[in-house]
Amino acid sequence: MAASDAPPYRLFYWPGIQGRGEFVRLALEDAGADYVDVAREPQGKGAGEQAMMELIGGPGRQPPFAPPFLEVGELRIGQTANILLFLGARLGLAPNDEAGRLWAHQLQLTIMDLVAEIHDTHHPISSQLYYEDQKPEAKRRAADFIGARLPKFLGYFESILAQGQATEPFFVGATHSYVDLSMFHIVEGLRHAFPRSMKRIEAGYPMLLALHARVMRRPRIAAYLSSPRRLRFNKQGIFRHYAELDHPPLKP
Amino acid sequence: MAASDAPPYRLFYWPGIQGRGEFVRLALEDAGADYVDVAREPQGKGAGEQAMMELIGGPGRQPPFAPPFLEVGELRIGQTANILLFLGARLGLAPNDEAGRLWAHQLQLTIMDLVAEIHDTHHPISSQLYYEDQKPEAKRRAADFIGARLPKFLGYFESILAQGQATEPFFVGATHSYVDLSMFHIVEGLRHAFPRSMKRIEAGYPMLLALHARVMRRPRIAAYLSSPRRLRFNKQGIFRHYAELDHPPLKP
Repeated sequence: MAASDAPPYRLFYWPGIQGRGEFVRLALEDAGADYVDVAREPQGKGAGEQAMMELIGGPGRQPPFAPPFLEVGELRIGQTANILLFLGARLGLAPNDEAGRLWAHQLQLTIMDLVAEIHDTHHPISSQLYYEDQKPEAKRRAADFIGARLPKFLGYFESILAQGQATEPFFVGATHSYVDLSMFHIVEGLRHAFPRSMKRIEAGYPMLLALHARVMRRPRIAAYLSSPRRLRFNKQGIFRHYAELDHPPLKP
Repeated sequence: MAASDAPPYRLFYWPGIQGRGEFVRLALEDAGADYVDVAREPQGKGAGEQAMMELIGGPGRQPPFAPPFLEVGELRIGQTANILLFLGARLGLAPNDEAGRLWAHQLQLTIMDLVAEIHDTHHPISSQLYYEDQKPEAKRRAADFIGARLPKFLGYFESILAQGQATEPFFVGATHSYVDLSMFHIVEGLRHAFPRSMKRIEAGYPMLLALHARVMRRPRIAAYLSSPRRLRFNKQGIFRHYAELDHPPLKP
């Protein structure tokens, strides 16, 4: 976090989980951006979880519907993929031309669709209920996810990487982008949540694994992952390990 | 559809349903843009549903994961909100400045989150299964949606409109945008899918209803709605009417 005259980025996200905020954190960390993780700061002076809650849903100008959101200068930006669209241009983590910018964003939105489906494996009925109150439904949904949806998404992303011309795997053109950082986290999360299924299928996606390894070697990412700023996976976030959801047999 | 030297927009979407394609159609229609709804054209010469299927998932350059997608000139753009981000600038349906553009897109992404939740009321387990094969789960999910999620989303959008300074309701600044068109369709769809629940609650959202009425009066929208280009609601799309899902009591 280099000192700077520029106003720091202020990230707002639930303090106890990686969640969707993690995709933003990875971009900020990879770029060495000066940022504050507001809801994880001590309460008071516009910091802490309460400061975040006061901004959600108003009555202030342009309230976000939900975290994460990002403030910088006069801007307040919500929706994970929208934040990355903005940061990609500012932090040099996306192409500058319109076509490249739209393509990177399209891939990110597809990643966010996958994230929503991963969340719903353990919460297929209601976000307000505990997992334990929707377990039979979660088992059915997770079986469909692991058997059909996951291979479809991973196969799609693998095919995009396979189109690349560079010697190393990149999603957008021949350079590193925020999409790569997000996909790194998807692989991390899937290995945590569904270790048995991933062990069975991941070798079928060699480019995704190479991308994961490449991102992990980036010095700022490596430093971040071993820092206290990186939260651990747990049973409140999106990627949760419930052994009973990791059982279903894959389609042949 | 005025004749023009510019290449027409080529929209690709499932031919039998409104679905997510409808949000793009409304923007193209409202702007009087020259477009072809490719998969609804007779088969052959790069048209028809087969032409669309050949582009999904590759092996061509930058394949979309799913419809809708839009081609114009050399560009091929996927993900509904991404298409509208692009069209908003081209068709004058969004602000030109960065802050306004990001805000409009943020609202659109929140609308797309709502759309996904509406879809999952009848398909909480798997998109591959029929509704009839996930009916008990659908009843539970729809009850949560109508009791908790729908009021939360509508209350949020109503509060945004209530912040507006114009005499007529607009989501973004004091001018009409693609966000207004999308919200018009949300109100239409909710009234179709959940008539009983909407009758009970919609008076609580007067600004949303005023926006709906305003959009419906726009001459090109009115012409579109009474044209054969406008598909009817049915039991294959996102907004489906199943009386048994429209039952659950609302929270007081």
